[in-house]
Amino acid sequence: MPKAIILRLESYLTYLAQLKREGKTNATSEELAALFGISSSRVRQDLLALGVSGRPRAGYDIDNLRSTIVEELDLCNIKPLAIVGLGNLGRALARSDIWTDGGFDLRAAFDSDPALIGTEVRSGLKVRNTTELFGVIKSESIVAACITVPAASAQPVTDLLVTAGVTGIWNFSPIEINVPEQVAVENQRLEQGLMTLSYKMSTISN
Amino acid sequence: MPKAIILRLESYLTYLAQLKREGKTNATSEELAALFGISSSRVRQDLLALGVSGRPRAGYDIDNLRSTIVEELDLCNIKPLAIVGLGNLGRALARSDIWTDGGFDLRAAFDSDPALIGTEVRSGLKVRNTTELFGVIKSESIVAACITVPAASAQPVTDLLVTAGVTGIWNFSPIEINVPEQVAVENQRLEQGLMTLSYKMSTISN
Repeated sequence: MPKAIILRLESYLTYLAQLKREGKTNATSEELAALFGISSSRVRQDLLALGVSGRPRAGYDIDNLRSTIVEELDLCNIKPLAIVGLGNLGRALARSDIWTDGGFDLRAAFDSDPALIGTEVRSGLKVRNTTELFGVIKSESIVAACITVPAASAQPVTDLLVTAGVTGIWNFSPIEINVPEQVAVENQRLEQGLMTLSYKMSTISN
Repeated sequence: MPKAIILRLESYLTYLAQLKREGKTNATSEELAALFGISSSRVRQDLLALGVSGRPRAGYDIDNLRSTIVEELDLCNIKPLAIVGLGNLGRALARSDIWTDGGFDLRAAFDSDPALIGTEVRSGLKVRNTTELFGVIKSESIVAACITVPAASAQPVTDLLVTAGVTGIWNFSPIEINVPEQVAVENQRLEQGLMTLSYKMSTISN
């Protein structure tokens, strides 16, 4: 599936969750289209590709559409994950509630800073020494990791994670990490959100 | 410009910066394509739309390509920005070096927590009371804001920012904020990075 469609499916999911919280049961392709500034036929195309079609006027059943997208992105299969690097960003992520929505279960946290090791980053989750990483990943069958470490540590930490059996890495470090073919990497480049904002502001003001 | 192309331009920029650091002066469409798993003709199309063409074999001049993309995304026009909400995530962002690369200059920081007000979030940047927000935005001609506040505060803070003259908001809160037409919003939904990783892992393992 092209990246652009994956991103739209994720955005539909976020928006459908909000509509659901507001008590709605149905959403039309026009509503979904308006939110993202795309055509309603593009929305219908995206969803038809998943085998979902809406009813005239009523649109899509929110629960049904959500579960189809959740299935497509494999979010129902909750995968054990570790976070490496508990600086401000790592702590903010560890304490957030994004994990389950994103398809993962945060099971372990690692840092090499003695001041952090042993502290509780959130209820029931203590920071462990990075020297324990290999053993913990193996014994707890952790398959994915979020790395929020400085640039210089990104590749060595990646190598260690991959050797221990991790097959998916969410990379917040500013560098491209090298991994074997069977390991998935998603680079999170926060400055790109700012760049998009910069572009949007320039098109509105012109 | 469609969102998908903007995202690719941002990714080219990030990758070109890395090639530059490695001492390279040229990049081919094949190199850029390989990194993102798209066809090299798609890369050439994206760049031709900006009026840039590569030379056979040598490819694109990195400096020239970077400055064209920087211009297109209006990143050379550095815009004054404020951050509202200095919890773990806000502090991590405030201390990071993403701002200038993203086209902004972090000028002010606001929080309503008395324990944070007056503390230095980074060299030369003190957290001010949110009650001062309106006046500071006006007097320092701040045009954009990053909001890292709890969901319940997102809309009231947005309303205050817009009234003070802000025309661009980078929204880390989990809700859709309402703004007038002439205000740009970029929602940063971190869980969507996890969803993409989940999808990539499922396609690799199948």
